[in-house]
Amino acid sequence: MDDPYVVIMAGGRGERFWPQSRLRRPKHLLPIVGDTSMLAQTVARLEGLVPPERIFVVTNLEQREATLEACPSLLPNHVVGEPVGRDTAAAVGLAAILVNRASADAVFAILPADHLIEQAERFRGVLRTAFEAAAREEILVTIGVLPTEPATGYGYVQRGESLFDLQGRDVYAVKRFVEKPDLDTASQYLESGDYFWNAGMFVWRPSVILAALQEYVPDLRAGLQELEDVWRLEDDLDDGMDKVYPDLPRISIDYAVMEKAPNVVTVESDFDWDDVGEWPAVARHFPADQAGNVTRGKVVSLDSQGNLVISPEGRLTALLGVKDLIVVETADATLICHRDQAQEVKRLAKEISRREDGANWT
Amino acid sequence: MDDPYVVIMAGGRGERFWPQSRLRRPKHLLPIVGDTSMLAQTVARLEGLVPPERIFVVTNLEQREATLEACPSLLPNHVVGEPVGRDTAAAVGLAAILVNRASADAVFAILPADHLIEQAERFRGVLRTAFEAAAREEILVTIGVLPTEPATGYGYVQRGESLFDLQGRDVYAVKRFVEKPDLDTASQYLESGDYFWNAGMFVWRPSVILAALQEYVPDLRAGLQELEDVWRLEDDLDDGMDKVYPDLPRISIDYAVMEKAPNVVTVESDFDWDDVGEWPAVARHFPADQAGNVTRGKVVSLDSQGNLVISPEGRLTALLGVKDLIVVETADATLICHRDQAQEVKRLAKEISRREDGANWT
Repeated sequence: MDDPYVVIMAGGRGERFWPQSRLRRPKHLLPIVGDTSMLAQTVARLEGLVPPERIFVVTNLEQREATLEACPSLLPNHVVGEPVGRDTAAAVGLAAILVNRASADAVFAILPADHLIEQAERFRGVLRTAFEAAAREEILVTIGVLPTEPATGYGYVQRGESLFDLQGRDVYAVKRFVEKPDLDTASQYLESGDYFWNAGMFVWRPSVILAALQEYVPDLRAGLQELEDVWRLEDDLDDGMDKVYPDLPRISIDYAVMEKAPNVVTVESDFDWDDVGEWPAVARHFPADQAGNVTRGKVVSLDSQGNLVISPEGRLTALLGVKDLIVVETADATLICHRDQAQEVKRLAKEISRREDGANWT
Repeated sequence: MDDPYVVIMAGGRGERFWPQSRLRRPKHLLPIVGDTSMLAQTVARLEGLVPPERIFVVTNLEQREATLEACPSLLPNHVVGEPVGRDTAAAVGLAAILVNRASADAVFAILPADHLIEQAERFRGVLRTAFEAAAREEILVTIGVLPTEPATGYGYVQRGESLFDLQGRDVYAVKRFVEKPDLDTASQYLESGDYFWNAGMFVWRPSVILAALQEYVPDLRAGLQELEDVWRLEDDLDDGMDKVYPDLPRISIDYAVMEKAPNVVTVESDFDWDDVGEWPAVARHFPADQAGNVTRGKVVSLDSQGNLVISPEGRLTALLGVKDLIVVETADATLICHRDQAQEVKRLAKEISRREDGANWT
């Protein structure tokens, strides 16, 4: 097996983490949980399995420099900026031709930049199995995350029969991908033991995913081919992107390929996983006081329960008689949000950016 | 009648208005409502009736300079700092000997520094009547504020018969002073029409209040005499304060004199009055949006009702799905408090000052 590659998908805007996240400072560039950015943690988590020189990052052009600053161990020409966002199928296709160019026979993993996995050794073990499976067969491997609760915010993968065993792990056929379920359905999924969370982590060879794109999204494959042709003539990766990218079809990899292809398999994982999708998720990763408050920075609370408070250096935040709030302060902005409304922070950020001088804060 | 004087009581700590108020920046030095400090508004409200050169301010020594800065029209030696707080009877006694020294036969008013009265002309009219009454008789005049709601946070004054009429206003005998009532009792007071709020505004001659102090708190009168004796020898008011003040008895003027003296009368007032006792009171003086939010500064709110938000220059405060909160931000601190808990802000401020580095924020 050739040395495997990793392509990290770092295209997020991170509006859900306003006011810490901003247009040029999205979630994966922030130390939302931990001391370094989520992206730097993602790179560090691969230590011993895939070194930085075999890691690519697909981000957007605006964040390219900030991404390089956040991860100085990456090769500058391995951090590629999309001039416009074209959903995940295009980004995956771009990843495939990047790896293809470096090593045509290598397997590679697609990994999100901003998820939290604390059990790194187990994570690398699962990836190792997936790399070996993808090197051996013409398959599209998805990492199936074992659900720990009946979550309604994720898509699920239903496993079929066990196809083979590698390094003590079963590799299963995939029966189907399902969209975010309602709570009852999610509870059934959890109970059955046959469903995994679709965490957006995939492993395959460039030739296999490109063949699938050719089959299901031929326009996208054609656009990628055009890009490869430009790259063959010139050494600057950015050349061609501006010209080709805006015309690529806008479709998700799940919808375009994963839900349709017959050769999709899944490797069951045994590591912890949290996509840390919004502020309340952050609270799970820090200890709470006796009243259930999670606080970072200088915070005083009286008669207050179940709050998450993040206060920056030099500031004091005081709570009195409040419950279940998310309070996040930066040097120039404050969010005060009911816990149950955290999924609306994105809408709030958009509302702010629409204001006369909103750009100062978004 | 000699020209009347006013002595403004500015001894408050203003912990109820944390984080805007601090130890050296109490409520009366802040523009809680309006563009200038509450104290400056109190001085301005007297325009045409009592000029700055006949106004004294009794404050504490720590705030003396800030007080002079807030009201540059005052004579420097008319701003007197108590070295330690000794409750209102001592401050009133100090006021009496200050006025006595300037003009023995003049009447003077005691006025709080941090109350809001927007109908200044009516206010001056009531004061004019009180001045004339106090000049004519050996009486202790209290200004009775007409209740507009069954407030449980104020003491009340029950009026007796009308003694005489001055400038078209009745001057009533006082039947009794009563402490803060419960809601039922307050409702009865409101309905009867016989009760006024005790707003801490008094008018009398130095000789009359000093005689009352001699009668009811002779130790205090003796201490004040000692102070007068020092002042007769030296021209610096601060001399003697350090020596005499700490030993003065600690008692309120209501308890010491007003509730006991037989010569207390009340002049009914017809001006608006608000002691702006805590943050929710501030909201009453600004327009609310359709969702009942009162905001000052740059504030964005979504799905939020009944909040008061004060955000300083350069900061954006965003609310999402929250109700009935008091949010007050300064350059270095944020208060987030449920409206119903605003009376506990003082306790919060004390709690903060107890912390290791709490002095930075109190």
